[in-house]
Amino acid sequence: MPTLSVFTDVPLAKNLESSLLKNYKQDNCPQKMFLAYRGRCQPWVSSVVHKIRLQIAQDPSLNHEYMPVMGMKSFIRASLELLFGKYSRVISENRVGGVHTVGDNGAFQLGAQFLKTWHGASQIVYIISSQNGECYWAKLMAAMKVSPISCLTFLPLTTYHRLYQSILFSFSFFLQSKQIFPFFDIPNQGLFTGDLEEDTKFLQYFVSGGFEFFCSQSLSKNFGIYDEGVGILVVVAFNNRLLLCALSQLMNFALALWLTPPTMGARIITTILCNPALQEAWKQNLKEVVENIMLMKEKVKEKLRLLGTPGSWNHITDQNGTHGYLGLNSQQVDYLVTKKHIHIPKNGRINFTCINACNIDYVTESVNEAVLFTKDSEK
Amino acid sequence: MPTLSVFTDVPLAKNLESSLLKNYKQDNCPQKMFLAYRGRCQPWVSSVVHKIRLQIAQDPSLNHEYMPVMGMKSFIRASLELLFGKYSRVISENRVGGVHTVGDNGAFQLGAQFLKTWHGASQIVYIISSQNGECYWAKLMAAMKVSPISCLTFLPLTTYHRLYQSILFSFSFFLQSKQIFPFFDIPNQGLFTGDLEEDTKFLQYFVSGGFEFFCSQSLSKNFGIYDEGVGILVVVAFNNRLLLCALSQLMNFALALWLTPPTMGARIITTILCNPALQEAWKQNLKEVVENIMLMKEKVKEKLRLLGTPGSWNHITDQNGTHGYLGLNSQQVDYLVTKKHIHIPKNGRINFTCINACNIDYVTESVNEAVLFTKDSEK
Repeated sequence: MPTLSVFTDVPLAKNLESSLLKNYKQDNCPQKMFLAYRGRCQPWVSSVVHKIRLQIAQDPSLNHEYMPVMGMKSFIRASLELLFGKYSRVISENRVGGVHTVGDNGAFQLGAQFLKTWHGASQIVYIISSQNGECYWAKLMAAMKVSPISCLTFLPLTTYHRLYQSILFSFSFFLQSKQIFPFFDIPNQGLFTGDLEEDTKFLQYFVSGGFEFFCSQSLSKNFGIYDEGVGILVVVAFNNRLLLCALSQLMNFALALWLTPPTMGARIITTILCNPALQEAWKQNLKEVVENIMLMKEKVKEKLRLLGTPGSWNHITDQNGTHGYLGLNSQQVDYLVTKKHIHIPKNGRINFTCINACNIDYVTESVNEAVLFTKDSEK
Repeated sequence: MPTLSVFTDVPLAKNLESSLLKNYKQDNCPQKMFLAYRGRCQPWVSSVVHKIRLQIAQDPSLNHEYMPVMGMKSFIRASLELLFGKYSRVISENRVGGVHTVGDNGAFQLGAQFLKTWHGASQIVYIISSQNGECYWAKLMAAMKVSPISCLTFLPLTTYHRLYQSILFSFSFFLQSKQIFPFFDIPNQGLFTGDLEEDTKFLQYFVSGGFEFFCSQSLSKNFGIYDEGVGILVVVAFNNRLLLCALSQLMNFALALWLTPPTMGARIITTILCNPALQEAWKQNLKEVVENIMLMKEKVKEKLRLLGTPGSWNHITDQNGTHGYLGLNSQQVDYLVTKKHIHIPKNGRINFTCINACNIDYVTESVNEAVLFTKDSEK
């Protein structure tokens, strides 16, 4: 019998479950609330998704056979058209393609493995967290100024940066002059402004600027299929020949990672995207979700105004997307967590879809209390 | 506009689609047949799988929320019980655990990443192909005799090796004396002999021998959910403390690979495994599939006997599982492919589930012709 364990020197890894969620779980107060991310509130699911899932389960013609390594071709095609527009030049020029991945992390992993092998100069990978908030762009530019040539940048183009042409211009200038290969991220197209095209304008800018890039495209969030991890690693190259070479190598990496990607989520999404009526219904759903979030933000702001909470709360409605900063300092956040059992991250960024008619009064009154209390204590 | 492509030096990768399938696709003969692997024939799906897929799609209580990084706990539990037995000591001693992965390739990738980081001595990884056929064990032992200490071995415990105690004994002795950490593979429990317990006896031997090991467990094939890639990286450690450390580190790797694994397949399988009546129906399905394969093998043998095909054909029925060697030489295989448009691999190993009442006569007559023709030509 063997006696020396292979695992002897393996330490217990730091628990990945955030301490935030841990603290929430350990909080015994029945009124406790989790507003950090959508883990504790009913997720949004487009109503057409249920319908199509059922339709697929009832379809006797589906044989649930292996997919090609690249994934579902029709799914990739439909997703790229969603991202770039059906009649976009980059599609008609056959210089954009994609590999169907297991969610956006799968796309990051696949892209990183490729770049490590085939873009040797890029040993340093910057992963710029979307948590940096308002000073995101300033920090990004600063990091890029000192970064080695050819390094890569993961850009989470998430939900709260209004992009101005001037920023885009200087950003693309930087990329080009330092020969940085960009790796973009479209985590939830349509859930930012409610308009699918508006949410990818950033990407269009780089396409028309003639850039090559990778982009992780997740379709789990904007369809509400969180348990499937449906993604694509999008590749834009100068021409079709270069694209085909890159895709052929990516296929080898995908094979070793997961052989073929799971298809349930991709099947649902493809069915919706390829049917104009279903696609329209889904778009309408998206729009309603974003409108409801903006309405909720308005209500929160209005309630704080009525409560006479000191300070301006316009920043709440100035931010697009599902998440937003409350604009509280660490003392105020601490007050919310410990005294009011409202669990939010230290930076005060909350998910507004977790606020509803039942808890809005408690949340706004607690914010008011936190501001007043810490104001008093500062005196 | 950037001008130098990042992909300039990226060559076109060798096409992963096997030349076998390519040749089949390019064959214009209407009678063409593909018997290599189950890509061209209707896959087997347990009848309970359809029922449960529909039930899940109709369930309004499922919110399709993210899973934990480790995957579905109930799925892991049920799968480990299937592998080791519900009341096995290794389970009651809490020293076996698993991480829900994207199919068996996902399990290999995850395990390999862990071992590369935490089992530094093992720089050399032997991946022993199951294509080696009958001389598999001899080759395996020979490779292990010359291999550096602590190397890893991937063992595809597939479908055609009758395991004798003496082989197992000398094999485990080798592993131990050379301190080799084994990485087993259970790709299709139940589809080898039709008996779930019988198919994992190999594993039980190492469990009771007190070994630590990794094992990739795929549940896509034995449930017929090929398009979902449902797997588990099984970890057996000396004790619970070591197990928890290993699992905690594996979680970090899984996070970077795919965040959380897709759940549709896992949900279906868990529902079936946790319901005794459904599990029994599935087991019965498995048994029938294996019995049908054995019956088909008998028929093929009998037809060859009636045709008076020279040689003994007992090896066809001596092999368990879905696949089996026809026992043809390369000239005979070549004859089948080029003259009869029956596309099979060079080693003559075919998937017997591709043979049916409609094509058995053509296949056996062609084999007979191939044997007679090459016999003549050799004269």
